[in-house]
Amino acid sequence: MTSVVQSLADVNQQLFEAKKTKKLSFEQIAQRMGRDEVWVAALFYGQAKPTDDEVDKLIDVLGPWVDAKAMKRHFNPHFFPERGQLTPMPPTDPTLYRLYEVVGVYGYALKSVIHEKFGDGIMSAINFSAKVDKVQKNGADTVRITYEGKWLPYDFHC
Amino acid sequence: MTSVVQSLADVNQQLFEAKKTKKLSFEQIAQRMGRDEVWVAALFYGQAKPTDDEVDKLIDVLGPWVDAKAMKRHFNPHFFPERGQLTPMPPTDPTLYRLYEVVGVYGYALKSVIHEKFGDGIMSAINFSAKVDKVQKNGADTVRITYEGKWLPYDFHC
Amino acid sequence: MTSVVQSLADVNQQLFEAKKTKKLSFEQIAQRMGRDEVWVAALFYGQAKPTDDEVDKLIDVLGPWVDAKAMKRHFNPHFFPERGQLTPMPPTDPTLYRLYEVVGVYGYALKSVIHEKFGDGIMSAINFSAKVDKVQKNGADTVRITYEGKWLPYDFHC
Amino acid sequence: MTSVVQSLADVNQQLFEAKKTKKLSFEQIAQRMGRDEVWVAALFYGQAKPTDDEVDKLIDVLGPWVDAKAMKRHFNPHFFPERGQLTPMPPTDPTLYRLYEVVGVYGYALKSVIHEKFGDGIMSAINFSAKVDKVQKNGADTVRITYEGKWLPYDFHC
Amino acid sequence: MTSVVQSLADVNQQLFEAKKTKKLSFEQIAQRMGRDEVWVAALFYGQAKPTDDEVDKLIDVLGPWVDAKAMKRHFNPHFFPERGQLTPMPPTDPTLYRLYEVVGVYGYALKSVIHEKFGDGIMSAINFSAKVDKVQKNGADTVRITYEGKWLPYDFHC
Amino acid sequence: MTSVVQSLADVNQQLFEAKKTKKLSFEQIAQRMGRDEVWVAALFYGQAKPTDDEVDKLIDVLGPWVDAKAMKRHFNPHFFPERGQLTPMPPTDPTLYRLYEVVGVYGYALKSVIHEKFGDGIMSAINFSAKVDKVQKNGADTVRITYEGKWLPYDFHC
Amino acid sequence: MTSVVQSLADVNQQLFEAKKTKKLSFEQIAQRMGRDEVWVAALFYGQAKPTDDEVDKLIDVLGPWVDAKAMKRHFNPHFFPERGQLTPMPPTDPTLYRLYEVVGVYGYALKSVIHEKFGDGIMSAINFSAKVDKVQKNGADTVRITYEGKWLPYDFHC
Amino acid sequence: MTSVVQSLADVNQQLFEAKKTKKLSFEQIAQRMGRDEVWVAALFYGQAKPTDDEVDKLIDVLGPWVDAKAMKRHFNPHFFPERGQLTPMPPTDPTLYRLYEVVGVYGYALKSVIHEKFGDGIMSAINFSAKVDKVQKNGADTVRITYEGKWLPYDFHC
Amino acid sequence: MTSVVQSLADVNQQLFEAKKTKKLSFEQIAQRMGRDEVWVAALFYGQAKPTDDEVDKLIDVLGPWVDAKAMKRHFNPHFFPERGQLTPMPPTDPTLYRLYEVVGVYGYALKSVIHEKFGDGIMSAINFSAKVDKVQKNGADTVRITYEGKWLPYDFHC
Amino acid sequence: MTSVVQSLADVNQQLFEAKKTKKLSFEQIAQRMGRDEVWVAALFYGQAKPTDDEVDKLIDVLGPWVDAKAMKRHFNPHFFPERGQLTPMPPTDPTLYRLYEVVGVYGYALKSVIHEKFGDGIMSAINFSAKVDKVQKNGADTVRITYEGKWLPYDFHC
Repeated sequence: MTSVVQSLADVNQQLFEAKKTKKLSFEQIAQRMGRDEVWVAALFYGQAKPTDDEVDKLIDVLGPWVDAKAMKRHFNPHFFPERGQLTPMPPTDPTLYRLYEVVGVYGYALKSVIHEKFGDGIMSAINFSAKVDKVQKNGADTVRITYEGKWLPYDFHC
Repeated sequence: MTSVVQSLADVNQQLFEAKKTKKLSFEQIAQRMGRDEVWVAALFYGQAKPTDDEVDKLIDVLGPWVDAKAMKRHFNPHFFPERGQLTPMPPTDPTLYRLYEVVGVYGYALKSVIHEKFGDGIMSAINFSAKVDKVQKNGADTVRITYEGKWLPYDFHC
Repeated sequence: MTSVVQSLADVNQQLFEAKKTKKLSFEQIAQRMGRDEVWVAALFYGQAKPTDDEVDKLIDVLGPWVDAKAMKRHFNPHFFPERGQLTPMPPTDPTLYRLYEVVGVYGYALKSVIHEKFGDGIMSAINFSAKVDKVQKNGADTVRITYEGKWLPYDFHC
Repeated sequence: MTSVVQSLADVNQQLFEAKKTKKLSFEQIAQRMGRDEVWVAALFYGQAKPTDDEVDKLIDVLGPWVDAKAMKRHFNPHFFPERGQLTPMPPTDPTLYRLYEVVGVYGYALKSVIHEKFGDGIMSAINFSAKVDKVQKNGADTVRITYEGKWLPYDFHC
Repeated sequence: MTSVVQSLADVNQQLFEAKKTKKLSFEQIAQRMGRDEVWVAALFYGQAKPTDDEVDKLIDVLGPWVDAKAMKRHFNPHFFPERGQLTPMPPTDPTLYRLYEVVGVYGYALKSVIHEKFGDGIMSAINFSAKVDKVQKNGADTVRITYEGKWLPYDFHC
Repeated sequence: MTSVVQSLADVNQQLFEAKKTKKLSFEQIAQRMGRDEVWVAALFYGQAKPTDDEVDKLIDVLGPWVDAKAMKRHFNPHFFPERGQLTPMPPTDPTLYRLYEVVGVYGYALKSVIHEKFGDGIMSAINFSAKVDKVQKNGADTVRITYEGKWLPYDFHC
Repeated sequence: MTSVVQSLADVNQQLFEAKKTKKLSFEQIAQRMGRDEVWVAALFYGQAKPTDDEVDKLIDVLGPWVDAKAMKRHFNPHFFPERGQLTPMPPTDPTLYRLYEVVGVYGYALKSVIHEKFGDGIMSAINFSAKVDKVQKNGADTVRITYEGKWLPYDFHC
Repeated sequence: MTSVVQSLADVNQQLFEAKKTKKLSFEQIAQRMGRDEVWVAALFYGQAKPTDDEVDKLIDVLGPWVDAKAMKRHFNPHFFPERGQLTPMPPTDPTLYRLYEVVGVYGYALKSVIHEKFGDGIMSAINFSAKVDKVQKNGADTVRITYEGKWLPYDFHC
Repeated sequence: MTSVVQSLADVNQQLFEAKKTKKLSFEQIAQRMGRDEVWVAALFYGQAKPTDDEVDKLIDVLGPWVDAKAMKRHFNPHFFPERGQLTPMPPTDPTLYRLYEVVGVYGYALKSVIHEKFGDGIMSAINFSAKVDKVQKNGADTVRITYEGKWLPYDFHC
Repeated sequence: MTSVVQSLADVNQQLFEAKKTKKLSFEQIAQRMGRDEVWVAALFYGQAKPTDDEVDKLIDVLGPWVDAKAMKRHFNPHFFPERGQLTPMPPTDPTLYRLYEVVGVYGYALKSVIHEKFGDGIMSAINFSAKVDKVQKNGADTVRITYEGKWLPYDFHC
């Protein structure tokens, strides 16, 4: 029941603290790093690997509130994220659960339409990006989430 | 291990058979019904409730390969879908699993960005739509999935 | 097996301690904050987000037994609850389990009656409130729990 | 993935068929039986035990579309419901899931308020009733669900 | 894999330590408190709520090996046990497992006989007591466990 | 969601049918067979093995509504019950669940008291009997369940 | 507990029957189809999608013991496998379990070496093949399983 | 959510730290130890037992950044790894999950081909090795994983 | 809840029926087949593969109560058991559960002693046999189960 | 992922340390204590209760490397092991898993043979011992594990 941020590595917690202190949004950090907002949030949660250059930018954006040395030591070339352990499944948090519910309710519909449009294969979750937009629909605030993943057709040949 | 279509109600299986016989895509049926493609696929999988008018259109589009009477009897005003039981969780099928994996890996990033843009609340999975588009990105076929759900802020007042 | 309060963030534990020291009930705190009793309890358990104004009131009501600075730092605009991780499912505690049992035994009955009265959709758990009342029924103390959630009809249109 | 009604005993399925044929709501049947609407729905789903007199009324209300003899044979004095197996937990259907989510998110808040108002014990789920009302709140259709359960204080004495 | 006692609140651990130091059995403590032996053991394991008077007796019986002040602070009027989290299910310990096995093997037999003798309802686990006796049966030491729970008939009326 | 009786072997279902037709209680059958009531119910549910003599008595008591030949063929010397698969765990039925809840809430208390009275070991669930009695306690109908199991001390010597 | 083949679609069962009747190995069928042996076995188990041409070859190789028409109807362009539901996880069968055990024991070692050689990403399980060879190692029959999957580097850019 | 390395024994964490400091790959360490690269990685993750001689080499390769004495004390003759607890199943990390997915999708195909080539038995996961190679296939970087396990035929004779 | 025998393939059910009709014990069949008793029982339960010669003997021993042709067709060279799916885990049947409990309670003790006597490795469950003997110990009937499995030392070399 | 020894009570960890320091095997300790080797290992893992005399012997054998006072305080008459929590189920460690696999694959065979030899009942896991022997079989090192448990026939009489 520890908050998910408290369960992260020290440098990740430091990132969140620095962001709070500097009152920066993920969008602002993303713009200054030249990366996507959701990717930056994923990086904060330990779900992405930055390049050395991106670590430098991160230090630049959040300094002096992050320990540059610890940051570089952590995000070294040998650092590879262990992804996905953060989120209990099924998620108990309603904001997360709705994303899960969509898979349960519309999963087969999405699978069928993907197959009709592309054939036998999958949307990659690796060569993949996601974004969140605030749009108006019928006069109401609406959350638009866009996933884009490379099409990977099944291809089995030794 | 029965296929998911075989586990559906008789009228739903009939819909799939008729669609196969008439060689119609979900997109084509959707256009003729004036509804969204993913919604039509969801309807076929028993995950959506059509209006009487939509049942008529469905019969019109897929006739004479569906039993109009059985169709109307099934999709009567008292029919309400039992949603979500179709999909084993975690999904074993890779096409479905990738949608699930995205929740595990990017869930907290998405939650954070939603909160930064909207505040405390959720994307509705009820007042909600989804679509699948085939786009080109860096010269490669790419699956774009777009979710749009009404913003629902937490609001607790008796 | 740590008590659920001990597993909360420090400021939440402080809230419980202050409440005990000042011998205030949730009802009394709720009246002084102008909010609902169950919402205040949910706030204590880390399941709700207060406004800045509500944080001030909380400090006012529970002072000087809470650390105002820590309180404000914690409940900053970037704080968003991670909801629902507190409760093991199925709940082992009998008081909680009975609420769960009702879903198992009367769930489909409630779903059917909701659909008959409203159509295809759900009771929102976000635009939602709950209260507990002590009433007499056939001369016996009776717990009355009232849920009120906005009606959300299924509405799928891109 | 069979619909939940199809998984019920034959006589229960017959009740649903007869209700559909006679176009009666649970509310109408409840009024004619002198029982509560949610209880009648629970009875249809095999989650309640009717008295002989209630079986007669049921036959009376739904005749001639139910087989009176089979009905009486099934709902004999030795019939005792096996409750709760109908609902997968966690529920996959969003209408049911929201009731479950409320337990996860507000469970401890409700438990605390119950204890503050009543002491150490539980709301009975046996000497218990539930109802669903359609109310207006801030000009919007709102689902009100009311649980009433006898207060049962812990009392351990051999 | 910590022992279950080590996972209890500090005051509960202190109770066990004091009991060991004073070489008192639960039976002896129970007699001096005027309560049942199993209830006292449950209290030690954090599964019961004592009255103020009972806390005094406990301090009296186990003094000076318990910290009276801490004891009173813990078992204050706002203390309500979170029950049942102690026991992994299915239990791995054979002594506990046999109690669980009886539910699996004889559960439906017990349910049927309860219904035949009482009707539709349950044995309360709240207005409930249990005791353990050592008896001789066919010349062999035999464990007799007696449960007594108030009969609660199903009764659903709004 | 099939009723538990319908999931039993044919001869067991026949036993239930014959009992219903002859309007016999488990108690009455038990008296005529010279066995315990709960054991007879367990036998009906496929959880016990009768001797040849007991099969004869069963046929005698329930004849001519049971097929004696099928009965003898089923309950042959090579028949050995597969116990415990009948009951989902945790049980969803409230009557069964309360027996399970007692293990979760009072399990460690019972284990401790057993150890204090008997030493290191268990109550046998094999050399074991259970009975249900209807008693009055404080003027209220009370369910008394008594377990008696042989004491089995841990004894490990090759 | 039905055998896995009996749980497949009719045409898949027919494939297995025809193969048995014609005494063909997967290797022989694979050679005549110009595909890989493991892929052919996967096809039989409903885990792969053949092209129309491959369906013709299959009919050619296994005729007249397969129903060509049913085969073509089943493996039509709209057929897309639902993958992975066949295998219980963890697998109970020892031959399957050892493949699973390798993931548990050597998973992190493999992940680390993959990252050291390739960077941040995964071995594709879609653009993927597997083969089984019988080799000698230290004079003993040895199973060599080779997986080849396209390298997919993490690449997140909207 | 601690990283898997942080959950290892102190000496294992030291191995990872020393490797990072000396900028050695598993391949380089493996060459200097005369063992396989994946085995060395497994050793680092606590999944393998080194000989005394191998401990010496390890100290030699990674000195002075590892505490030789602690190393020898840990990897003493009485040290036997507890294997497999490191990896959550199903794995949440995509790199690990793909190895798991292969078992789910191609498991029965692999089992069948193994049986056709070898008979009734298994590939040993004990007398077993694995390696990772970077190969080119159709001009793309490809991960090749090779498992080699001794063939173990079923052989049951007392 | 079907009995485990009823869930077996037809020929396996026939084996059990023939055995019952001919009143043969597994021991008697084993002696006439020249195999081990537990192996024969495993064969009946679909957990072992007989040679052609053993199928002939089986037909010989159980004829004419088994269909020789069906038997040979089923136990053809391409038949390979799918092992282990028969037994729910944890087992609900007490006879099976005790075998499971031993692993839970004495598993680490057995592992340690195996390692002390043999080194790093496992007892094979493939090159393995088991037998059951009835012995007297301290004047009481005692079940002796003996497992013998080939020692397999860990050996990882590409 | 802490090693199982590190998760034990302090005195148990001390036992393992002392054993390592004095380079004693479980067999040697067992001989000097006059108990069985597997029992001693179980004692070290917290799965058995020693008598006062055995505690003295333990101190004698392992002194001065164990704290006699702490040892006596821990293994006091009120100490009763909480058994079985040590072993994750299914076990991830291959040495433990093979013992579990045997239950899954040969469980019903063993149950049947036990019933044929003894009747309806179980092998006790309480009045029970186990040993491990190193034997030669067909010229290969073989692990022989022997379980001996008292025969407990089902016997249900109030």
